[in-house]
Amino acid sequence: MSIVQETIELQTSADTDVLDLTPDVTDFVARSGVTEGLLVLFIPGSTASVTTIEYESGAVADLKRAVERLAPRDEHYEHNLRWGDGNGFSHVRAALLGPSLTIPVHEGLLELGTWQQIVLCDFDNRPRRRRVLLRLLS
Amino acid sequence: MSIVQETIELQTSADTDVLDLTPDVTDFVARSGVTEGLLVLFIPGSTASVTTIEYESGAVADLKRAVERLAPRDEHYEHNLRWGDGNGFSHVRAALLGPSLTIPVHEGLLELGTWQQIVLCDFDNRPRRRRVLLRLLS
Amino acid sequence: MSIVQETIELQTSADTDVLDLTPDVTDFVARSGVTEGLLVLFIPGSTASVTTIEYESGAVADLKRAVERLAPRDEHYEHNLRWGDGNGFSHVRAALLGPSLTIPVHEGLLELGTWQQIVLCDFDNRPRRRRVLLRLLS
Repeated sequence: MSIVQETIELQTSADTDVLDLTPDVTDFVARSGVTEGLLVLFIPGSTASVTTIEYESGAVADLKRAVERLAPRDEHYEHNLRWGDGNGFSHVRAALLGPSLTIPVHEGLLELGTWQQIVLCDFDNRPRRRRVLLRLLS
Repeated sequence: MSIVQETIELQTSADTDVLDLTPDVTDFVARSGVTEGLLVLFIPGSTASVTTIEYESGAVADLKRAVERLAPRDEHYEHNLRWGDGNGFSHVRAALLGPSLTIPVHEGLLELGTWQQIVLCDFDNRPRRRRVLLRLLS
Repeated sequence: MSIVQETIELQTSADTDVLDLTPDVTDFVARSGVTEGLLVLFIPGSTASVTTIEYESGAVADLKRAVERLAPRDEHYEHNLRWGDGNGFSHVRAALLGPSLTIPVHEGLLELGTWQQIVLCDFDNRPRRRRVLLRLLS
């Protein structure tokens, strides 16, 4: 087996910043030369997640609103009492959405739907420098 | 390494159709001859997800109701204003549940719990022809 | 390819018991001698999930409260009418959070964030003996 590794580094802004990772991931798969395989994405950190969505501003705004209902920012959080960093809501959102994703690669391309993009959701309450880990198995 | 590929094609009906994929996936694993490995499922498209649940009509109805609370159909969705296809709720639900799943295979069998089935949740507001991608690593 | 297998067995208590799996998983990775690879976790059963969170009592309590909002214990569940075991809420919670997780291993270590731990969430309404399946690909 071969596992090719890559790390995407990006800067986020605060409060559920949703960033499209598809161009970078597509580029990595193309450069790898792998035609049949599996791509794994993982985000280290406890206040961010990876998922897929149609990356247009309406659907992204809708996702942000749903995530606000799921773990409202102004709810009481015990994490905030203990740590004072005020991002209890971020931890809960990240745990609910999860940090990993696996996508098949076929004929050198990610097997995404036509309107399906890979996104990083940064739920933290301050801008962060993020690393997204890519592993391509073939 | 070997990766065996298969695509399940199925027809869904509208509004959170939950379909049991377990028989088809079990059959694929059996035909592959693989005894020890990992099965990955992925659904291309931004309005559907894969997960596991006890596939009996009560639990399935309960899941549908929870998903309706998570992203209510009649909520305001900006996606709907922009695209007019009225499935903003579908995009949000799919992003929250996620498109991929990984299940160990041991002694030729999926390592599911006794009451645990693999399901496709199609959240779109119209019937769809769906493809679920299977990859079996060994 | 090589896949190393391990099963973690643990006893849970009732009602969204959140257990830190990180020490056991870290120990397994170290004993395997694998330096570059991918770790897959899977929980067999339809009333439990695996995810990551900062494992401190505040954030864990906040997650429990969010999960209670997601699928309240005292809501009406059709599963309960049919099966009488009263754990309809457990099934819904487990289906929403999902049973699997994939984490890269690099230089012999899990690529987790500093404050990110791997957790089992047992949503059942009674103590359970649980098995978490580990598969390490390299």
